[in-house]
Amino acid sequence: MDDWKALRVSAERLAADFEALSQIGATPDGGVHRPAFSPAHLEARLWLGERIREAGLRFRIDSVGNHSALLACGPDHAATLLLGSHLDSVPNGGRFDGALGVLAALEVLRVVKEAGLSLPVHLEAIDFTDEEGTLVGLLGSAALAGKLSLQELQAPRGGRAELLAGLQRAGLSESGLPGARRDPAGLAGYLELHIEQGPRLVNAGVDIGVVSAIVGICSYRLDFIGRADHAGTTPMLDRRDAGLGASEFILASRRLVLDEFPDCAINVGEARFAPGAFNIVPERASLALELRAPQADTFSRLETALLDLAGATAGSHRLGLEARFLGRHQPSPMGSLAQQAITQAAGDLGLRSMVLVSGAGHDAQSLADLCPTGMLFIPSQAGASHSPREFSQWVDCQNGANVLLQSVLRMAYRK
Amino acid sequence: MDDWKALRVSAERLAADFEALSQIGATPDGGVHRPAFSPAHLEARLWLGERIREAGLRFRIDSVGNHSALLACGPDHAATLLLGSHLDSVPNGGRFDGALGVLAALEVLRVVKEAGLSLPVHLEAIDFTDEEGTLVGLLGSAALAGKLSLQELQAPRGGRAELLAGLQRAGLSESGLPGARRDPAGLAGYLELHIEQGPRLVNAGVDIGVVSAIVGICSYRLDFIGRADHAGTTPMLDRRDAGLGASEFILASRRLVLDEFPDCAINVGEARFAPGAFNIVPERASLALELRAPQADTFSRLETALLDLAGATAGSHRLGLEARFLGRHQPSPMGSLAQQAITQAAGDLGLRSMVLVSGAGHDAQSLADLCPTGMLFIPSQAGASHSPREFSQWVDCQNGANVLLQSVLRMAYRK
Repeated sequence: MDDWKALRVSAERLAADFEALSQIGATPDGGVHRPAFSPAHLEARLWLGERIREAGLRFRIDSVGNHSALLACGPDHAATLLLGSHLDSVPNGGRFDGALGVLAALEVLRVVKEAGLSLPVHLEAIDFTDEEGTLVGLLGSAALAGKLSLQELQAPRGGRAELLAGLQRAGLSESGLPGARRDPAGLAGYLELHIEQGPRLVNAGVDIGVVSAIVGICSYRLDFIGRADHAGTTPMLDRRDAGLGASEFILASRRLVLDEFPDCAINVGEARFAPGAFNIVPERASLALELRAPQADTFSRLETALLDLAGATAGSHRLGLEARFLGRHQPSPMGSLAQQAITQAAGDLGLRSMVLVSGAGHDAQSLADLCPTGMLFIPSQAGASHSPREFSQWVDCQNGANVLLQSVLRMAYRK
Repeated sequence: MDDWKALRVSAERLAADFEALSQIGATPDGGVHRPAFSPAHLEARLWLGERIREAGLRFRIDSVGNHSALLACGPDHAATLLLGSHLDSVPNGGRFDGALGVLAALEVLRVVKEAGLSLPVHLEAIDFTDEEGTLVGLLGSAALAGKLSLQELQAPRGGRAELLAGLQRAGLSESGLPGARRDPAGLAGYLELHIEQGPRLVNAGVDIGVVSAIVGICSYRLDFIGRADHAGTTPMLDRRDAGLGASEFILASRRLVLDEFPDCAINVGEARFAPGAFNIVPERASLALELRAPQADTFSRLETALLDLAGATAGSHRLGLEARFLGRHQPSPMGSLAQQAITQAAGDLGLRSMVLVSGAGHDAQSLADLCPTGMLFIPSQAGASHSPREFSQWVDCQNGANVLLQSVLRMAYRK
């Protein structure tokens, strides 16, 4: 008897939650502004706590601020299958990124509770802290996985003062953060529903993406260093203009990736010239470089190739180069058990699925080497994300929640 | 009897002033940081006021903040021969730019006063406000010449809020600025001693540069506008990356000038990408562009060619372009009377001189069409300027001050 295969989420309940949550931190253009530990983010978490209690689920906040709903549906001492995502957003982000995964996870627990199912595992729907990296990035999942680096906390990408102020606003202490670690033996797995944030599912006309791996991400600050000179009196051929080296690197690095690393991606998201005056030749051009690759070997070859290119470009313009390494997440293959569960769940629901690599980082990568971990994507219209233009059709959201529910049950039953 | 031809500046007194002034806003690397209306700039002007009073000269501050020493050495109702430069610096600039000209002008007045000369004109040593354009550029001399544009004050290159805050720090009011205008009939001329800020005098082994014209300068803010997208999930070929267009423009505009406008110069002194995150494709790349040309016709051809190039570059990257015109100074020929006075003064002092174009803008260009105006340059070691590396040999500074003194007397006597 596989009665559980007939279980479905309540689309109405999920939709009502989604609409209510979208109002918290709403921006005039239809997005949300909920950076980690911002007032809107804290308000969203309060709201989630109320929904959890309302559903008769146990509510827990751990020492890194992760918010959880617990359903003790397994035997005593059973392991816990985690499912979730995050409620924080990038500044002026979209309504779907993270939020949908948290709400779907909560809905799955409500459905299992209402069905009175006894599973071989307990379930926990979790909202991870600071996934987006306004402060640190993957903060909540890294702490839970016991991978929180004290170094990251000393010089976090969002600024040390901002991190400490945010922790204080959330009632958390820095010294308590590592205490959020869970014993991997108690984790039966982790599943996350997320929007694709790219155009591949829409372009392929496919309903569900089965994530095979999350790309590795590595970031550098590259400073090209020339000489500040008077821009009117220094002949152009005599200059050492840091802006020229930086500009050539921006163009050449793109060509390098397109030509030699077609499954990778880079971004130069920020550039700043110093001293930054109209009439001074730039002495320093500082670039924010991020690179992504799906496999460990490509990842390391790409990193080397880009640093070599930066050095050669600087040299050809008679510039110095300072390359400051800022952090790395290795590529994370998803577990085969989870991929299989998602693929079969989608098939049973009559949905088309395809395997793809996640070009974005996700909390799942913190857990991938600790327990069976998987992610499923739903289509993002126009591939837009991290923007108010982010949008997914409601039918896709509902499909995703049902695939999550059925994947959870398959993972729990090992079917 | 031409006894005045034997007059010389006091090199000791000038050197003492120069050393004292160089301490105000001094940076650890030997330069100065005295942007217009910064605390160090205001301190330097206080110091100048003390020197003026100490010398027994009349001290005046006009409504744009120009600081003057007045010597009533002419008949009643005589016109005034101005000589001067500016005490403000670019951010982290050098010790000589502007400062030397102001101190030499003050020294000339002291020498004339001590000699008890009666001249056909009065003398005024002037320190012009905001020559460098931290806020507006040539602000003090333009106001004095009655050329202050209200438009420039609405959207100044340094920012409107910064301008208003600076005026307030200096005790000035925006509405009072145009009141600094002088009647050209009362101006007998303007002479300015300045460092060359380029390598030509040093390379030619020449002591004194006689400026024939000041280049025209024009500045734009160019914004390339693309689309903010998630840098991990948006395929690189699908992006509209504003940084690519801006980078290509930086490289292509340089090639354009080198190939087609060899007597002109441009600079992209600042670049900023927005929103400016590692993981977001730049939506906006904002460049600060400045162009310089020695003649009016080349000036206008260059401006058109650069705007065309920016538009074409934006188009080829599927970007929008916003080109905001920020200001223009037409090329300014110097007066023949002044050029002749400087050339003869240098010759009488046994110094070699050559005629050259100034690639930098100077307050002299504000006055060039109102009264006989001239500039003399002394050599800049390594051509360095707008940098702490800016340096001129003391013997050259002393020579320059003596040529200024003798040129002033020649201009005054019309000899």
